[in-house]
Amino acid sequence: MELVTIDDIRAAADRITGSVVRTPLLPAPWADPQHPVWIKPESLQVIGAFKVRGAFNAIGRLDDGTRARGVVAYSSGNHAQAVAYAAARFGIPAHIVMPEETPGVKVAATRAHGAEVVLCAAGQRERVADEVVARTGGVLVPPFDHPDVIAGQGTIGLEIAHDLPDVANVLIPVSGGGLASGIGTAIKALCPHARVYGVEPELAADAAESLRVGHRVDWPIADRNRTIADGLRSQPSELTFAHLQRVLDELITVSESQIRDAVRELALKARLVAEPSGAVTLAAYRNTALPPGPTVLILSGGNIEPALLQEILSG
Amino acid sequence: MELVTIDDIRAAADRITGSVVRTPLLPAPWADPQHPVWIKPESLQVIGAFKVRGAFNAIGRLDDGTRARGVVAYSSGNHAQAVAYAAARFGIPAHIVMPEETPGVKVAATRAHGAEVVLCAAGQRERVADEVVARTGGVLVPPFDHPDVIAGQGTIGLEIAHDLPDVANVLIPVSGGGLASGIGTAIKALCPHARVYGVEPELAADAAESLRVGHRVDWPIADRNRTIADGLRSQPSELTFAHLQRVLDELITVSESQIRDAVRELALKARLVAEPSGAVTLAAYRNTALPPGPTVLILSGGNIEPALLQEILSG
Repeated sequence: MELVTIDDIRAAADRITGSVVRTPLLPAPWADPQHPVWIKPESLQVIGAFKVRGAFNAIGRLDDGTRARGVVAYSSGNHAQAVAYAAARFGIPAHIVMPEETPGVKVAATRAHGAEVVLCAAGQRERVADEVVARTGGVLVPPFDHPDVIAGQGTIGLEIAHDLPDVANVLIPVSGGGLASGIGTAIKALCPHARVYGVEPELAADAAESLRVGHRVDWPIADRNRTIADGLRSQPSELTFAHLQRVLDELITVSESQIRDAVRELALKARLVAEPSGAVTLAAYRNTALPPGPTVLILSGGNIEPALLQEILSG
Repeated sequence: MELVTIDDIRAAADRITGSVVRTPLLPAPWADPQHPVWIKPESLQVIGAFKVRGAFNAIGRLDDGTRARGVVAYSSGNHAQAVAYAAARFGIPAHIVMPEETPGVKVAATRAHGAEVVLCAAGQRERVADEVVARTGGVLVPPFDHPDVIAGQGTIGLEIAHDLPDVANVLIPVSGGGLASGIGTAIKALCPHARVYGVEPELAADAAESLRVGHRVDWPIADRNRTIADGLRSQPSELTFAHLQRVLDELITVSESQIRDAVRELALKARLVAEPSGAVTLAAYRNTALPPGPTVLILSGGNIEPALLQEILSG
């Protein structure tokens, strides 16, 4: 299987520069100078999550004629907004397939970017997306299972290597694995001595088990849905799993209460609103003995329901 | 009276680079491409506010022998943390005079930076600070009434001019006026066509009245203390008022409910935790008809009491 290369990621960076926020590495306010920790706040992207990077790269790589036919995506979360937003910037139509149970606020946000939302029954979104592709001639932009998406997310790793060349530890949330595949590939190429850690909720630790046994293990979606980290309920594909096997040194799992504590700490100490899926890296850092050296926590997104944020802040 | 110049601000930037976070301009997620709005999130400084810029510049300008005697500041707020943090980075002692009624969490945070906290009776802090200066031989770093502090805060304006040379409107919170003096000086020098707006709470609108009548007007502290924006209860000094008269095109006032709405919007739409004082610029933007063109909102700080943040989020 052909894996994404550092050259693919460099090309992605050239393609998306100016379309996404060049996020800074923020020194964690609680860290002492002897043990520096940095936060990479992808929550500060316009749509509140890293997903814009992959979306802009995947759409940017299409030839003009193909791109003009528009794009299609299925997602109830950040990928929906990312594709809708990127399509609007390219001035092309976007159809986003969302399950009927998607909260109205997310449907509205996707429509606000000018996308056409196609609601479907639970579990039907891939099939319905295929139908929309057949009907519109648009190109499917998958949430993680695509080299262009992986390369786009990998630009985060390029930025880390540029800003902090002596990075020792990089912690990355793992769901479908596109983010960790991309960042891990960049870090291993440019900072070969750095360790790359994936992080999963204990309640959706399919990738941890898969890496342990050496092949992909399927966890029932009903199990994965138990975690509060709603962006980490997907499972790696064949393509992303091959990357994860190659680039991850370890996969750390965190509990639900650790995730909640991390959301609270990020809001009150780092003044960053994180969604639970984005806070798992701080949860892992707080509960794991890592090797010494400069450590980067990827804060992947900040789209949390207001009621949940209130509940978590009230402790 | 001698005012701070663009050269002073450039020298300050050289002095503090690497010691403070180079904050990005974040595109406001709600803005349409025809009316771009940018947020300058100084809440992402390690101590959660812009005050580190002035503190590093003022301490950095001292000669080695003087600096080694340490620094003294009086503040119950962000300036206390800023001076304590900067002193620790320089490896010099810091004495911070705080009123006895300062919340314990702020006293603890200041001590956590290694500073010695000197508690004093209400209204006595300037006198007690003078005593500490006399006793320790340390140098007083005032919160706003000093050219080096103004020049340090002005580095924000340099960064805006670099990142967005065609900026049309810059909105800045006004309290003692050091921030607006510094940023306004930089913007007027580098982007002469840009308009510079100060923003104050209606309940602490002494600077607005002072600018209207052409001389400093004193508002009783009991009046100014009514606003939720606890960082905006100071009044300009002779030095900062002279700057404000020169660099501000207008001073906008905002209501308490507008400030609360802005804190909520920043958390939920921009994923940024803002203190009320830092959110007044968004409040002003939302309730004022500004001339067209790229607009920058200074989000000056993010140190909000957890209980207040919860209360505001619950709407």
